[in-house]
Amino acid sequence: MLQECLGNNTPPKCFFQGAADVRHLEMGQASKEINPHVDQWESEGRFPAHKVFKILGNAGFLGVNKPVEYGGLGLDFSYSVAVSEEFGSDELKKEYLLPSILGDKVACLGVSEVGAGSDVSSIMTKAVRKGDELVINGGKMWTTNGTQADWMCLLANTGDGPPHRNKSLVCLPMNLPGIHIARQIDKMGMRSSDTAEVFFEDVRVPCSHIIGQEGMGFTYQMLQFQEERLWAVANSLTTMDIIIQETIDYTRQRKIFKRPVLHHQTVHFRLAELQTEVELLRSLLHRATALYIRGNDVTKLASMAKLKVGRLARELGDSCLQFWGGMGFTNDVLVSRFYRDSRLISIGGGADEVMLGIICKYMDTLPK
Amino acid sequence: MLQECLGNNTPPKCFFQGAADVRHLEMGQASKEINPHVDQWESEGRFPAHKVFKILGNAGFLGVNKPVEYGGLGLDFSYSVAVSEEFGSDELKKEYLLPSILGDKVACLGVSEVGAGSDVSSIMTKAVRKGDELVINGGKMWTTNGTQADWMCLLANTGDGPPHRNKSLVCLPMNLPGIHIARQIDKMGMRSSDTAEVFFEDVRVPCSHIIGQEGMGFTYQMLQFQEERLWAVANSLTTMDIIIQETIDYTRQRKIFKRPVLHHQTVHFRLAELQTEVELLRSLLHRATALYIRGNDVTKLASMAKLKVGRLARELGDSCLQFWGGMGFTNDVLVSRFYRDSRLISIGGGADEVMLGIICKYMDTLPK
Amino acid sequence: MLQECLGNNTPPKCFFQGAADVRHLEMGQASKEINPHVDQWESEGRFPAHKVFKILGNAGFLGVNKPVEYGGLGLDFSYSVAVSEEFGSDELKKEYLLPSILGDKVACLGVSEVGAGSDVSSIMTKAVRKGDELVINGGKMWTTNGTQADWMCLLANTGDGPPHRNKSLVCLPMNLPGIHIARQIDKMGMRSSDTAEVFFEDVRVPCSHIIGQEGMGFTYQMLQFQEERLWAVANSLTTMDIIIQETIDYTRQRKIFKRPVLHHQTVHFRLAELQTEVELLRSLLHRATALYIRGNDVTKLASMAKLKVGRLARELGDSCLQFWGGMGFTNDVLVSRFYRDSRLISIGGGADEVMLGIICKYMDTLPK
Amino acid sequence: MLQECLGNNTPPKCFFQGAADVRHLEMGQASKEINPHVDQWESEGRFPAHKVFKILGNAGFLGVNKPVEYGGLGLDFSYSVAVSEEFGSDELKKEYLLPSILGDKVACLGVSEVGAGSDVSSIMTKAVRKGDELVINGGKMWTTNGTQADWMCLLANTGDGPPHRNKSLVCLPMNLPGIHIARQIDKMGMRSSDTAEVFFEDVRVPCSHIIGQEGMGFTYQMLQFQEERLWAVANSLTTMDIIIQETIDYTRQRKIFKRPVLHHQTVHFRLAELQTEVELLRSLLHRATALYIRGNDVTKLASMAKLKVGRLARELGDSCLQFWGGMGFTNDVLVSRFYRDSRLISIGGGADEVMLGIICKYMDTLPK
Repeated sequence: MLQECLGNNTPPKCFFQGAADVRHLEMGQASKEINPHVDQWESEGRFPAHKVFKILGNAGFLGVNKPVEYGGLGLDFSYSVAVSEEFGSDELKKEYLLPSILGDKVACLGVSEVGAGSDVSSIMTKAVRKGDELVINGGKMWTTNGTQADWMCLLANTGDGPPHRNKSLVCLPMNLPGIHIARQIDKMGMRSSDTAEVFFEDVRVPCSHIIGQEGMGFTYQMLQFQEERLWAVANSLTTMDIIIQETIDYTRQRKIFKRPVLHHQTVHFRLAELQTEVELLRSLLHRATALYIRGNDVTKLASMAKLKVGRLARELGDSCLQFWGGMGFTNDVLVSRFYRDSRLISIGGGADEVMLGIICKYMDTLPK
Repeated sequence: MLQECLGNNTPPKCFFQGAADVRHLEMGQASKEINPHVDQWESEGRFPAHKVFKILGNAGFLGVNKPVEYGGLGLDFSYSVAVSEEFGSDELKKEYLLPSILGDKVACLGVSEVGAGSDVSSIMTKAVRKGDELVINGGKMWTTNGTQADWMCLLANTGDGPPHRNKSLVCLPMNLPGIHIARQIDKMGMRSSDTAEVFFEDVRVPCSHIIGQEGMGFTYQMLQFQEERLWAVANSLTTMDIIIQETIDYTRQRKIFKRPVLHHQTVHFRLAELQTEVELLRSLLHRATALYIRGNDVTKLASMAKLKVGRLARELGDSCLQFWGGMGFTNDVLVSRFYRDSRLISIGGGADEVMLGIICKYMDTLPK
Repeated sequence: MLQECLGNNTPPKCFFQGAADVRHLEMGQASKEINPHVDQWESEGRFPAHKVFKILGNAGFLGVNKPVEYGGLGLDFSYSVAVSEEFGSDELKKEYLLPSILGDKVACLGVSEVGAGSDVSSIMTKAVRKGDELVINGGKMWTTNGTQADWMCLLANTGDGPPHRNKSLVCLPMNLPGIHIARQIDKMGMRSSDTAEVFFEDVRVPCSHIIGQEGMGFTYQMLQFQEERLWAVANSLTTMDIIIQETIDYTRQRKIFKRPVLHHQTVHFRLAELQTEVELLRSLLHRATALYIRGNDVTKLASMAKLKVGRLARELGDSCLQFWGGMGFTNDVLVSRFYRDSRLISIGGGADEVMLGIICKYMDTLPK
Repeated sequence: MLQECLGNNTPPKCFFQGAADVRHLEMGQASKEINPHVDQWESEGRFPAHKVFKILGNAGFLGVNKPVEYGGLGLDFSYSVAVSEEFGSDELKKEYLLPSILGDKVACLGVSEVGAGSDVSSIMTKAVRKGDELVINGGKMWTTNGTQADWMCLLANTGDGPPHRNKSLVCLPMNLPGIHIARQIDKMGMRSSDTAEVFFEDVRVPCSHIIGQEGMGFTYQMLQFQEERLWAVANSLTTMDIIIQETIDYTRQRKIFKRPVLHHQTVHFRLAELQTEVELLRSLLHRATALYIRGNDVTKLASMAKLKVGRLARELGDSCLQFWGGMGFTNDVLVSRFYRDSRLISIGGGADEVMLGIICKYMDTLPK
């Protein structure tokens, strides 16, 4: 993943720390402990988060380089160095951040809500200060790892100001009274990922659980999205390479009208077109990452990459599946799982239309 | 369905008789007995064929107008009048054809094989004449209703001639010794449809079970494909209309950035583009059907319609799903089921590439 | 053209009467007098309108069936029967309508203006009643045949009411004082078509020159657009068939890597896809025309057909040109002229975005 | 151009030296002497090559860094350092290479032939050794600057071996007896570029005019294509940025239905999509160039970039033109010229299909 982001041209600096998509991770020993179980988890509709995160933690996949001592959040997406440096008091770091990096605790991310999937600024969940405590009411949706997490990194309204200035991130233990985990959502893809709705009814947590500065939650979240988007691209690129290669291998031996499917010009030309698009995206990822590491704002480029990865994944999954014939329609092959799973990319983590809006903002083409 | 094929401009002549896709049938009472159970069948991975076919039979959906007495085959796709007139001896008609029209027996279609999904001429299953019997060896794949059928309309090699002249259709009872139903295929969509592999090991059946003329099986099959393709188009058009309308209804009430999703120009313009493509396809269906009823060869137009319906269904499912946001990724909504189910259209019943080959043949652009 | 609109399934009723695109008309003798000169007119930037319209008039291409005596307007697009029946006084009919049908006078259509190309309701040209005369001020753009026309069918504001009720059509002789023909527009395609800007400065014309009912001009124009759009589709379909066939013929004899270009699978498959789209569009045209002839409002279907023809022409021209290699980039072949000419279809006669808006209106998906 | 290829991340090393497309060059003083005349040259169908190349030579745009003394070939595309180091004898360098770098002589490139536009290995022109001379017969097509050039860098068969080993590059003065310049090709775009057919009839040139090693012509040409392709991408990227920006500026002030065209969501979203594709391509160009400078074989990446630039230019030109309305169809605006000019990119310098073949070769997916 790291290698994917950086390309061959840049000095190695590690900054990606999270890893939810454990299926195609290239990480030696750890993958050997994980991959054999994926089919079973897929049919059961969830993977054992604590077991998997411990494997990843032992392998060092959940930490970041700096600060060494509490480097990352075991969330489904990476958190920026800025956020982890702001994480809060030493107790909070010791109790939640460090165990998450080690894989001893599982965290989840509480941002999306019903009616505010892509429009983060319009969330309704409130955390109202009463004495030394925050009293939380509202609910979250699409919460990955929601049924298994030990704590949630919650985005909630902690004030009445303008929507970009009234939100905070809160470290919320998931075993508190008033937290209801409503149901596991029945998804068409990403089936081994556990996705829950979570409701809060007068949940009380000490104010010291606010992460970083109060009122800066929206800003932290937007910063974090830059990395999340680059991470989503990097993750998908590896899988897309695999899909193309598996399709080449399969169509080389599958015959139709007495010739290998691969030898039909529309097949190998189409695969060449898809590989071209993959290399274009990879190049943009390397460029954006290199700029990001040097401290530039890469929101525009990262949003472009996120937009492209969602669209390319749909196109690639759809095109490759066709070449597998009836076999592509079974659940026995990676390409059909990718077809279902990857459809989420254009929806989650900021939908395509949100990315287009951001790009337009940077191009200064939006109506005032 | 009938109405769909004929449009408003043509006198009503019934010729479609089969119906596998029972989910969106507009047929009054019958649909009331079927639709409430679809979700359950979907999760169980098969629908109760005998129960459903009896409902359809009672409603008169499995017959054709002429000849009234044994008008159709209760297959998953319709059989042409020509074929049903040739069906065979009176015993065969009484024993198999008539009960299938009444919904008392379930039939399945045995054409596709491993390695010969789209290339029908290259099937390997043999039916060798020994005295008064045919001895059958080989196997079939992608057999819809395969685990529940009472009899199979089997395509097999009955001679050694050229591949277009050596095949016959055989009426094969499914309870004979030597028939092994290997497994139900785990598909990513069409989950309530039961799809099996069937193996034949020295299966013996009287020669009188040959349907129509010996050696004409490939020709019958090709004739039948014209109707099958028109049927596939008609069936999908209804569903595509429903998907668009449901998407309009949902996006009208779902809001993002404080406006209904529908009111964003990219949304209503995209839906208008999709409805335009649907109307184009509907027009071609009406035109091809009208020509077909008058006795013309519509292989080229039917192949074009089949090619288009597969591609449009993918495009439409993918585009509409996007407007549902996270909800579109759940199994709770029709659009996500359509996204998975409809992916089969470009693969089954003659893949897109086979349709392109047929069209090229009619355009005389293939290398000799 | 007529045959194209009606297909083979409908009784012959003539209703298209205009013909600006004289290049590929299939009309026997007339085409023999026209086609040999097209290249020259193309390089000169205009065709001799009076000569060509006389040929068309003699051939009977400029009239409609009813009313026989003054059946059509020799405009670049057809006018509906309704309009021609309303044409005005007998003098007006004898002086302008009849000679236009006979090809003795050339007419032009004055609708589009600077800043109101596709938004007809926002035109600014005014015709103010002073005594028995209208005094006209304003200007028109994109006026086909503008430098050669004897009279213009002008759309102008004749009142102060709401924009859909304050406009009239006026029969305007082009030799009146105050009419200035500013320049011939230098277009990238349609080069033999003469396209002018026309300015009006206190032009005076008798009030009796109002065509039909005062205030109904916008309505007449919208009615006329239904036919104009069907005409645009019919006209382009013929040309698209020719382009595909010429491309097949050329690529059959042009070789690359020692094989005919046509024999490469991506070439013949692509041509099959394009022919499929052409047949889809043809089917929609037949369906819409049949409904129109029976008196239905086909605005939605005609707008869909117009949208599709513009997009398909761009796609088809672009794809076919590629197969001609360097030859496709020269002005010596039809495909390159079509590439330039056909780009206008999506812009003129109601741009794609206007068509989408109309379709949305009929789908009831626009914000109120 | 240089900046475009290298991005911001790489130390500045100059290696592009040629420049045919002088229209949008950003080069300070030189562009001021060139740009004002482009419209005139466009309508005259050729630009004054000697005048323009002298301006470029004075500005230092025609040279390469190493070897300093004779660094480049003033061809329409750049030649690799390898080739220029091999250029031949000192006389040849002084007589042809050096003056071309200084802009005192105009060179042209003689590769494409009738029937061998994209398939370089199948050229037919022969240069047969007779004593100390080569006797040349054959012809070249699509020769940019062909009517004005002082010398041609000619690719010809100099032996009978396999097609990749029997060709040489020859420095051919254009004023020799037996050279016939047949006609200027009438192109639909790139109209200011002078494109000729050249015929050779027993043309005699000393054997010392062979550039580099005899028999290595095909190899040199393939090496050169890497740079040519990167150059084509770099050149087009700059123009595509300009087209997008001009479209934003124009649509911001052009109104339709009372709102700026730009403020319609389909317009600003579409422009964001196009800018995204431009940035993807730019990223691939930077990546490929950085690898190339370090000495890697970037044939695969350069071919991918060439494939993409041709397709993107068509898509971008077509989409942007639409937003200009009728104005986009006139010859007065850059976007319509780009629409015509840029169509060549997918055809010239190795057509899209040739690029796909090369990519397939590197993916090892071609039939043997």
